[in-house]
Formats: sequence, structure tokens, C-alpha cells
Amino acid sequence: MTALTSAPLDPARTRKAVDAALAEFLERQQRSTAHRPISRMIDALRSFLFAGGKRIRPAMCLCGWQAAGGRGDIDPVIRTAASLELFHAFTLIHDDIMDNSATRRGRPSAHRALAAWRRGRGGRGHGSGAGDRFGVNAAILLGDLALAWSDEMLQTAGLTPGQLRAVLPVLHTMRTEVMQGQYLDLLSTGRLTGDIDLALTVVRYKSAKYTVERPLHLGAALAGPDPSVMDACTAYALPIGEAFQLRDDLLGVFGDTAATGKPVIDDLREGKSTVLMSLAVARADAAQLRLLHRLVGDPTLEESQAAAVRAVLEETHARQDVEHMIATRYREALRALDRAPFPSVATAALRRLADAATARTH
Amino acid sequence: MTALTSAPLDPARTRKAVDAALAEFLERQQRSTAHRPISRMIDALRSFLFAGGKRIRPAMCLCGWQAAGGRGDIDPVIRTAASLELFHAFTLIHDDIMDNSATRRGRPSAHRALAAWRRGRGGRGHGSGAGDRFGVNAAILLGDLALAWSDEMLQTAGLTPGQLRAVLPVLHTMRTEVMQGQYLDLLSTGRLTGDIDLALTVVRYKSAKYTVERPLHLGAALAGPDPSVMDACTAYALPIGEAFQLRDDLLGVFGDTAATGKPVIDDLREGKSTVLMSLAVARADAAQLRLLHRLVGDPTLEESQAAAVRAVLEETHARQDVEHMIATRYREALRALDRAPFPSVATAALRRLADAATARTH
Repeated sequence: MTALTSAPLDPARTRKAVDAALAEFLERQQRSTAHRPISRMIDALRSFLFAGGKRIRPAMCLCGWQAAGGRGDIDPVIRTAASLELFHAFTLIHDDIMDNSATRRGRPSAHRALAAWRRGRGGRGHGSGAGDRFGVNAAILLGDLALAWSDEMLQTAGLTPGQLRAVLPVLHTMRTEVMQGQYLDLLSTGRLTGDIDLALTVVRYKSAKYTVERPLHLGAALAGPDPSVMDACTAYALPIGEAFQLRDDLLGVFGDTAATGKPVIDDLREGKSTVLMSLAVARADAAQLRLLHRLVGDPTLEESQAAAVRAVLEETHARQDVEHMIATRYREALRALDRAPFPSVATAALRRLADAATARTH
Repeated sequence: MTALTSAPLDPARTRKAVDAALAEFLERQQRSTAHRPISRMIDALRSFLFAGGKRIRPAMCLCGWQAAGGRGDIDPVIRTAASLELFHAFTLIHDDIMDNSATRRGRPSAHRALAAWRRGRGGRGHGSGAGDRFGVNAAILLGDLALAWSDEMLQTAGLTPGQLRAVLPVLHTMRTEVMQGQYLDLLSTGRLTGDIDLALTVVRYKSAKYTVERPLHLGAALAGPDPSVMDACTAYALPIGEAFQLRDDLLGVFGDTAATGKPVIDDLREGKSTVLMSLAVARADAAQLRLLHRLVGDPTLEESQAAAVRAVLEETHARQDVEHMIATRYREALRALDRAPFPSVATAALRRLADAATARTH
């Protein structure tokens, strides 16, 4: 594993260290398994993890550790941070099943990849779609494995008993919050109510807390819990996490497939009740509202129809207002950083992450 | 929580204590949740847990603790045992999605119950089946929640650091083994190969280790790990666990729906490659083999066709041989008990469990 000092965290080196920890953990699992077939699942997990991804949660975890003045052996901290990426793989694999997404990170989603593998081996059963069904079932299981192993990776990261005691309540809260957010998302998907508060609650739970606040808290807890550091993490995390997700929602409709690795039509076909869409629904005139109800959530939506939806998002100023919300939250996060009791290396890293999260194109 | 002494474990009192621990944990989650919608998921989990179930894994865990001479505060042991039931809820909820099972414990399976709830609330979306899709997605999430919470319940059970250290490697092994078994099961479902060794491997991983060996080991680890106790647990657990699953397979085809809470046609429709079916395939003549290939795994199988399959299972002596395998394993388990270094209260309890597991009708 690459050694890291508590000097400024270099994003490329951090990523390399996190990926090395993940690879090492999967190799350990591979060595300890008695049965060859499960190797296929480990391979599938490895392909998924190393196809891409921004490693934003591990980066936040390491920043939290630095923000709280973390000192000493960084290897257990790296492994803990990396375990968040396994947890994230779990959420994405199950999310893609729920959304029936065909692609992820520019490649087939896990359930599609497993279905293709099964068909390639001549898997069959009664009726058509037996490969698809195998793909979904094996991907449910692959997500389960990623969730169980994220826990195992953290528990075997080499943390001290004190670190484990400090970290576990944060971890438990994070898991429940993610599932709460996911459930709210399920409830609201397919219902264009124009309920902006609900859409913002989903953003807060599914993204702001999960992607930024709790990873920062986890890292900070590893360094020794200090309430003022925790609060300062939250003050930065919630606005920047919301901005991150609002950017994601814009990219999901107006983005460039080549950059995001996901067709920009999926969110519209799925009928995601994003803040963007809720704003448009809340402000649409009768004709625009009919168009949105007719097209958003139609799984066979075509590009010309998507263009008509995009036009409504522009005409109602929903797109423009979401850009404005991103800018407001970005400024709020930077103000929180100015007030935070963090060492300057941590503040600088968090500022870079804020810039990257809000200005990104993928 | 009902106090238990380390005197003989009374099955009814054990069950009551385990259920009280589960109810208490869910109430704690309910109190700590800020958002009402997740209450629906907690209700769904509670309904699922308290609709029935034999609590065999918690019972085994408590037996393991007694077998290893467990002394002192039993409440943390009860909570650890109960966390296995939450883990089991996870496996069943996801299993029912994978198998497309309509019922569980005599009630609608979780995905069906959630779909019905959504339709009752007028949930809609594009195309038909939006309620079904919601049901499956919400049940994937419900299983995820049960998995995450089983871990949280164990971590917050009040175990000493030494107990946690002893228990976690067993827990990690158990989780991976269950998922290995489930994956092998997925691979073999729909393929009537007559591969009896493969079918027995699935039984070993999905059932014998998961239902008996690892829960016993978990309980024994709580009392203080002793290799000779662990080995004696294994010597009892593997044969009796296999017998338990072989009985389950027989009940899945020849059982009484009213007693099992599951239609006895589901296993045949799903095309499960059980030991029973593998024996029949291995011995079938050409006409019988054609019949099995045509009917087993047909999701529209009717009762008259199921009767034809049952006839083949009788004619090939597959049913009779599985009964013989159960009897052999039962005797082997009892011999292992005779040799085990367990206190007599534990031996007596394990003998009762062996009787119940092999002679049961549901």
C-alpha cells in the first residue's frame, strides 16, 4: 500500500492508495474462498469497482481525518475510507436494478453484465428472459456481497478499539440514512407532484449526508471525535453535498453521455422527481404540465421527446434556478470552510473538492 | 427482556426473549428516525419478522453458548442471537424476490405485500405493473435494511470487546458462505443436470453451515472460543443441517401447504436443483427425463403436472433415498452429540432440535 503522510493529500496518490486497499481486500477474499464459482462474483465486483468512479467518499473520509488533526498510522484510515467505496458499489448495483439502468460508468450495469455472461455460457430456462432474470438475481446478490464486505473491510481495517467505537455509530447512521433516502426516492419516482421540499429531502439524505457529511464524520471520528469539528464538517457538507447532487441532476438531463458514462435520457425515462423537475412542475402552465405528465417517466421516451422536456425545463427557468441554487450552496460551503477549525491542508483539499463537485461535467 | 438463566433453555421462553429483543431494536429505530415514510419500512420488517418463523438460528446460537459453558449476563447473547433472525429476514426477502415467490410464512411475500400497499395508495406510473415494480424495488431495499440492521443489532448488543473480537470472524465467514451458497443455487437453478454433488454443496453452504454450524459457532465464541467445542459443534451441525434442508426439500414438493405456509408447487415451478431432483434426474429413464425437463422449471406448472413430477420422484426412488439420507445424517449427528464435550443441558437441547428438524411437517 502506498504510504501517505499527513501532509497535503494528493488526489491521485489518495486514489491509488484507496484502489490498492480495495484490490488487496478482494484478493484476500479470493484466496480464502474454497469454491471457484464465487470467483465469478469477485471478478464482477472488481470490474465494477475499477471501471471508474470518482472515489469522492473515500476522499472525504481522508479529508475528515485531516480536518480533525489525524496523526499516526494512515493505513487503517485508508482501508476504512476504501470500505466506503465497497458500500457505494452496493448502493449503485442495487440502484441500477431498481432504475433498470443499462449502463454505469460507461459500461453495462452489473445486472446487464451478469445477464450477458450467463447468455454467453448458454444459460437457459423456461421462456425468454432467463438470462435477464439471472442477471438481476445475481446482481441483487452482488450488491448484498458488497454491503457485507464493506462492513468486513472496515472491521478488519486494523483500527484501534477506540477508533472502532467512535466510528460505528456514524456508520450505522449513514447506512440507515442512505436507505431512508433511497426509499423516499422510490416513493416519489413516477409522481410529478412539484413538491420541491420532498425533492430536497431526498437530495439531503441520498446525497448530501451520504456523499459528504458522513464520510467526513467517519474520518474525523477516526482522528478522535471533537464536537466542534463534527459541526464544522456538517456546515460544509450539507450545502456542498446538495450542490453536488443538483449538478448531477442537471447532468442527468443536459449532460454529455460521453462524459457521464450514462445516457442523458435515463433520468427522464425513469421519471425521477428531482428538484429540477419539481421546480418545472410547480411553475408549468397547463400545456407544459400535460407535456411533462405525458413524457416524464415513459420508459420508451425518444430523443425528440426528451428535447421537448428539456425545452420546458428551460422555459420554466427550472434549469437556471438550479444553477442558482448550486452557486448559493457553493458560496455557503466556502463560508463554512472559512470559519472551520481545520488545519489549512484540510481546508485547501475541501475547497478543491467543492470546486470539482460543482463545476464538473461528469 | 425475559431473564434467562443458564439452566436448560426452554424453547418457548427462548423464543419470547428473542422476539422481545427484536421488537425492542425495531422500536429504537422507529424512535430515532426523523422521517415518517421510513416507518412504513419498519412496519413491513416487523410484519415479516412476526408473521412466523422457527427462530432456529437464534436457538442454535443460544445452544452454542451453553455448549461452550457460557456464564454471566445472557442479555447480550440473546440480542446477538436475535440479530441472526434479522439477517435471516434479509436472506428470505431477497430470496423470495429471486424466486418470484408469492407467499412466505402463509402471507404474501415482502415484495408482494409492498406492491399491494402501493396499489392501495393509488400508486401509478407509466404502463401496468408499476405497483409490482415498486414492490420488488422496495423489497430489495427492505432486505438491505435488514442486513445493515442485523449488523447494527449485533454491534450494539452490549458484547464485551473480547466477545466482539471472537464473534466477528465467524459472522464474516457466515455471511460470505450464505452468499456463496445462494450464488451456487442461482447457477444451478433451471439446469437439471443430475449433479448430486453440486446439489449437496448448495445444501451445505446455504443450509447446513448457515442454519446450524455458524449460529452454534457464534454462540460458542461468545462463551470463549475453545477449538474442541468448535469442532464438536461442526460434527453435529453439518449432518443435522443437511438433514434439515433435505427435509425442507421433501416438504417443498410433498408437503402440506396449510402446514408449510408455502404452496408445494413453487419449488417445482422454480426448477430448484435440489438433491431430491438431482437423484431423480440421475436415475430417470428416457421418458421420465423428458417429463422432468418439460415440466420442472415451468412457471405455469399446474397441479396435475406437479403430480406427474411427484410420481417420477417416487418411481426413481428419489424420495425414498432422500428419506434414507435424512435418517443417516440424523444418526450421525446424534453420535457426534454423544462424543461432544458439552454440558448435558446443551446436549439435551441439541437432541430436541435434531428431532424437530428432521421429523417436522413444516
